[in-house]
Amino acid sequence: MPTPPNVSPAAFAAALTAWRQAVGPEWVFTSAEDVALYRDFYSPFWGEPEERVASAAVAPATLEQVQAVVRAANQHRIPLYPISTGRNLAYGGSAPVYSGSVVLDLKRMNRVIEVSERNAYALVEPGVSYFDLYEHITKEGLDVWIDTPDPGWGSVIGNALDGGAGWTASPFRDHFGSHCGLEVVLASGEVVRTGMGALPNSRTWQQNRWGFGPWVDGLFRQSNFGVVTKMGIYLMPRPEAMVSGTATTDRDENIVPMLDALNLLENQHVVNGSTQIYGGLDRPGTHSPVWTCTVPIYGPENVVRAQMEYARRKFTAIPGVNFLEGELVRTPLSPEALKRAHLVNFGIPNLSTFAMLGRSPGNPDPAGGHIGFSPIVPRTGESLLEFKRFYQENLPKVSGGENLGIIGPVYMTCWERTLVCLIMFPIGRDKERNAKMRRAFEAWVRLAAERGWAEYRAPAAFQDLVSDTYSYNHNALRRLRETIKDAVDPNGILSAGRYGVWPKHLRKV
Amino acid sequence: MPTPPNVSPAAFAAALTAWRQAVGPEWVFTSAEDVALYRDFYSPFWGEPEERVASAAVAPATLEQVQAVVRAANQHRIPLYPISTGRNLAYGGSAPVYSGSVVLDLKRMNRVIEVSERNAYALVEPGVSYFDLYEHITKEGLDVWIDTPDPGWGSVIGNALDGGAGWTASPFRDHFGSHCGLEVVLASGEVVRTGMGALPNSRTWQQNRWGFGPWVDGLFRQSNFGVVTKMGIYLMPRPEAMVSGTATTDRDENIVPMLDALNLLENQHVVNGSTQIYGGLDRPGTHSPVWTCTVPIYGPENVVRAQMEYARRKFTAIPGVNFLEGELVRTPLSPEALKRAHLVNFGIPNLSTFAMLGRSPGNPDPAGGHIGFSPIVPRTGESLLEFKRFYQENLPKVSGGENLGIIGPVYMTCWERTLVCLIMFPIGRDKERNAKMRRAFEAWVRLAAERGWAEYRAPAAFQDLVSDTYSYNHNALRRLRETIKDAVDPNGILSAGRYGVWPKHLRKV
Repeated sequence: MPTPPNVSPAAFAAALTAWRQAVGPEWVFTSAEDVALYRDFYSPFWGEPEERVASAAVAPATLEQVQAVVRAANQHRIPLYPISTGRNLAYGGSAPVYSGSVVLDLKRMNRVIEVSERNAYALVEPGVSYFDLYEHITKEGLDVWIDTPDPGWGSVIGNALDGGAGWTASPFRDHFGSHCGLEVVLASGEVVRTGMGALPNSRTWQQNRWGFGPWVDGLFRQSNFGVVTKMGIYLMPRPEAMVSGTATTDRDENIVPMLDALNLLENQHVVNGSTQIYGGLDRPGTHSPVWTCTVPIYGPENVVRAQMEYARRKFTAIPGVNFLEGELVRTPLSPEALKRAHLVNFGIPNLSTFAMLGRSPGNPDPAGGHIGFSPIVPRTGESLLEFKRFYQENLPKVSGGENLGIIGPVYMTCWERTLVCLIMFPIGRDKERNAKMRRAFEAWVRLAAERGWAEYRAPAAFQDLVSDTYSYNHNALRRLRETIKDAVDPNGILSAGRYGVWPKHLRKV
Repeated sequence: MPTPPNVSPAAFAAALTAWRQAVGPEWVFTSAEDVALYRDFYSPFWGEPEERVASAAVAPATLEQVQAVVRAANQHRIPLYPISTGRNLAYGGSAPVYSGSVVLDLKRMNRVIEVSERNAYALVEPGVSYFDLYEHITKEGLDVWIDTPDPGWGSVIGNALDGGAGWTASPFRDHFGSHCGLEVVLASGEVVRTGMGALPNSRTWQQNRWGFGPWVDGLFRQSNFGVVTKMGIYLMPRPEAMVSGTATTDRDENIVPMLDALNLLENQHVVNGSTQIYGGLDRPGTHSPVWTCTVPIYGPENVVRAQMEYARRKFTAIPGVNFLEGELVRTPLSPEALKRAHLVNFGIPNLSTFAMLGRSPGNPDPAGGHIGFSPIVPRTGESLLEFKRFYQENLPKVSGGENLGIIGPVYMTCWERTLVCLIMFPIGRDKERNAKMRRAFEAWVRLAAERGWAEYRAPAAFQDLVSDTYSYNHNALRRLRETIKDAVDPNGILSAGRYGVWPKHLRKV
């Protein structure tokens, strides 16, 4: 049985004993077979010495058990890596950032504590997946939608904390931005409730996010300052209808006024769906320079018709831009409509994204998984054109001109005001190919940072690399986070290294 | 010349010398006349020993000067109280929470650094008032609106950091929620840029708020962890039109379905303006039980017409509810429309709110100012009815049945999902009357907390009181904030006591 780094066998044994007592022996995993299940199956270092792996895992079922596990870890200085459901594929899965950490697996904490239809929110535990929440809402017959990312098996809390995004209307697509109130176990084992939840018997914990005084919730995003055990999340009252328009042009320069029009529409919330822009590069079935912009709108039927009319007017005012209005879809979807629908656009969790990337007649040898290089660029047409040139000019340097099976760039607005240029790199079981992907990924990160573009999220293996690019004033922001880390987790037991924040004893000077 | 508490005359003299060197002697204020200008003119303790007053003031003009001032204060352990423009009336004005602190007056830092029309944001310094920003936008002819609170002389940054709200469309009314990126001077004098701003040469600092890794911005809300020297804020592209509807009912029980309808409309963003509910209590010209709900909508003309039609349908589906549609106002406002308009609803800063509360033929003896007791209650009709009963039942106990010139309750949605029941207490120069107000305020805070209702913001003199009500798990949230405070400001020099967070050496155990 492996021991976490810098932990004596005696200390580890003492922690294991305490955990077994706290959660029951059957929920403490130390066998190689059990622990292997926590590997990141799309690790860019799969099977190599640098792959980050767990030493053991422990799975509490209640808040009190989480507190007991964390207290014992803190006492014996055992590095813990909390996961919600561990489905964070492409970003590290359930494997720790600091190899040898013990996974704190929260999947048994899967209670949907409350769903309010009238006030459109849910209060959930970390093990609640999008499927679980959807099932609960459906069973109760509540008229609210959830906003789900591509794979529906992920954790509602985990996805929000990792900065994930979904596919319905703004502002619900920004999952961290849609949360309202946290319950957190600190490294000391203490429980904190944030926002209005700090008021005993609070009745608005899931309604007002700010509460009174400094707002600490942001500290638990892409972070390692505590273990989130409950989270409130805003839900969307089911919109009557959805309609999607498509603006196209065959002139490169038209992307400038097109994006200006889109900004106006989104910043006014006339267009509220997840807009995407295709630039014809490496996108099967399109030819450069053809630009396509999808414009989905959700709301009451008469309102979305008016919004679509306004959007059409704005786009068709640009010479050389065509605008095609799609079919209006009423909700709840008819069985016929369900068959044709991109389900996540209707808040229905599913796993079809894996079918798209997986083995099929048209794709007999799938790579396995993908990792995403996804810098945020300014929301202007000039920036899109610059990114396109940047990609074309640097591809030879980065990967010797090889495409490497890369998909991209795809331009998408994860949420209002944010434009992400996504390039996806296949990751598989071929070590040499994975090494090429890693070199390409690293090169893109550095080249992009030189232009003032950087990632909003990164695979565990590259979190230090990306964090290094955020270096203003000698990494002042990271140093502030480290100061806070040392204060709230003085023994550095929680998720060492996550998103570039290392505890004092593991920090590079 | 008074010396800050626990500071030796020699240390104070050394700090004053350093500050004079840093900012120029004319920007360090120590005379009684100058320092008196920093009094809170609506202090509930005006002229009493408990009134919190400054000992001196220093007014830097640049980031580097702020750093120098903070460094000297940190070296000599001088308590500083940063203010933006000091216009935070009803919440402490420019007076420190910890009496004897030196006011760090940032009003000279009044540069509008950038306004982007295409991406609808501004980057400003703390001394920039709503008037300043409005003037800049008007002069440049930019087609964007700002969201201003009632008095337009306040600071854009100060208002956001204090949790203020305005009067145009959601989500812009939530001023802290609309900010994007901060530059902060820590107690050490170090500068941190948050979000995408931590990337050198970042091009999306005012576009993506989250950046990469733990989000620290929330720590600077209603807080004392740093001095904010720059802030990005989202602006609203000028909406083509605004129309406001009014739903009324003469049946108390109708407020339940009315608020459910309003929740649906606001949570779907069909209604996006600042809705208000009047319950007839102490509201001149209305009679209980008449409930009135105002429903303003902003957007393109054809869209707001559709939204208003949908809103009307939802309200008139409730038996006994009448719905009156107001006149549609096109923007920019005509000179005629400007004369009739409630200017803040159109993003135009002004000071008319003072005229309303000030001396006039109908109000020959104005109280002076007001402080607000403004608990957040659940957004349900049942809660409104409960609050109404709560108010009526407790008024005799709280103030011997006297009205005390109190205005309220007024129910308003500061922002989506948040409902505030506002009661305003007049504060003036009559010490006995002020003492009655204070006792009433304290009683209301305690009584409300027993029901699970609490404030989102409080006058400086009552911040400890309100903070005490947020006591879950032996004040775990406050203790977490204190841990962070001790780490980032180990000498406790910044805004001691603000929103209930005291530095170690001043903390009650």
